[in-house]
Amino acid sequence: MKIRSYTYEEYIDMVKSFHGYAAPGMVIGGFMVDLAYQHLPKEGLFDSVSETPACLPDAIQLLTPCTIGNGWLRVIDTGRFALILYEKTQGEGIRVFLDPARLPAWPEIKSWYLKLKPKKEQDFQLLIEQIKQAGSSIYGVQRVKVKPQLITGKKHRNEFTICPSCGESYPVDDGEICRGCAGASPCTVSETLVN
Amino acid sequence: MKIRSYTYEEYIDMVKSFHGYAAPGMVIGGFMVDLAYQHLPKEGLFDSVSETPACLPDAIQLLTPCTIGNGWLRVIDTGRFALILYEKTQGEGIRVFLDPARLPAWPEIKSWYLKLKPKKEQDFQLLIEQIKQAGSSIYGVQRVKVKPQLITGKKHRNEFTICPSCGESYPVDDGEICRGCAGASPCTVSETLVN
Repeated sequence: MKIRSYTYEEYIDMVKSFHGYAAPGMVIGGFMVDLAYQHLPKEGLFDSVSETPACLPDAIQLLTPCTIGNGWLRVIDTGRFALILYEKTQGEGIRVFLDPARLPAWPEIKSWYLKLKPKKEQDFQLLIEQIKQAGSSIYGVQRVKVKPQLITGKKHRNEFTICPSCGESYPVDDGEICRGCAGASPCTVSETLVN
Repeated sequence: MKIRSYTYEEYIDMVKSFHGYAAPGMVIGGFMVDLAYQHLPKEGLFDSVSETPACLPDAIQLLTPCTIGNGWLRVIDTGRFALILYEKTQGEGIRVFLDPARLPAWPEIKSWYLKLKPKKEQDFQLLIEQIKQAGSSIYGVQRVKVKPQLITGKKHRNEFTICPSCGESYPVDDGEICRGCAGASPCTVSETLVN
C-alpha cells in the first residue's frame, strides 16, 4: 500500500511529526490526496482547496507542494470532508470526498465520520483497520472546474501603506485604517515589550 | 544564529522542502516565531494566529506544534505581517510584528515589506543579508490577550447529517443544506468518475 511515493508507515511517521498524532482524518486524507493524483494529468502545476479546516489541509501540505503560506492551498470551509486539486491556470481538476453512501459496510468509519458516538467510545484500532481495508472504495471522485477567483492569473501587486491607528503596514485597498484596527484584530494589547 | 533549535542553514533547508523556496517572508517568519518564544513561558501549550495567509503560517507550522489541520493555528487575515502565540486555555500570549518604524535603517527590507518596487527589481541577496543583519531589531513585541472565541474550552461535539442536495455529510448547525450547496462551493462538478 502506497500513499503517493511513501509507504503507509512512512506516511504515518510524517503525520505524527507534522500533525502531532496519527488522526483518522489524516489517514483518510492520505488516501484522498493519492486518489486525486490518480485522476490528474501526470504533468502540471496544481493548486488545491480543502473544504474543511480539519485534517485535510495537513494531508495536502504533506503530500503536495501546496501549503497555506505559499498560497497554493486555500481552506474554503463548506463543512464537507472534501479536497480539490486543480490545474492552476485553467481551473480544471479533481474533487475527492468521503461518501456517506459508501459507508454502511464500514460501521466504525461511518460512526467516526458522522460523529455518532463520543471519541472515547470509538474503537481507534478498528477504525484505522477499516480505513485501510476500505482503500479507495469509500470516496467519491468528481471532475470539477473551480470558480474564476481561484484561478491564477496575472498578479496584481498590492500597494501597502502605514495604518495611522496601529502604525503597522497593511494593503491600501483595505481602507483608511487596517482591518485589524477596523475590528478584525484577534487580540487586545496589554503591554508593549522592549525589544 | 539559531532559529528555535535549528541553525539558520537547517531552517532554510526545511523552508525549501516545505514552502518550495527560501522566501524572504519565511526568513523573517523564522525570526518572528523565535522571538515570540523568547517572551513566552518555558512551559505551556500554545495555540497560534497568523494575521496574514502569506508565509507566516508556514513558519509557524515548521517551528511550532501548531498546524492548520490540527486546529492549533488559525489564519485571521488583518492584512498585517504579524503572528501571535498564546497559552491556549487562558489566551495570554505574545504578538510579534514587523515594525515599519524600525525599517529606515534597512532600505531593502522596507522596500520589500511596503512593496515599493516590483519583485524583479529587488536585490534578493541584499534583502536576505539585511534580514539576517537586522536580527530581532526590526520587530515589535506585544503582550496580548486573544479574544474569547480563540480560547480552548470544553469541546462542543458537532452533530453531522447528510445534505439532501449533494448527499455529503455536513455539520447540522449549518442549516437544511450544506454550506457548499448554499453557495460556498469553490467549484462546479462536470463529471462524476467511477471509482
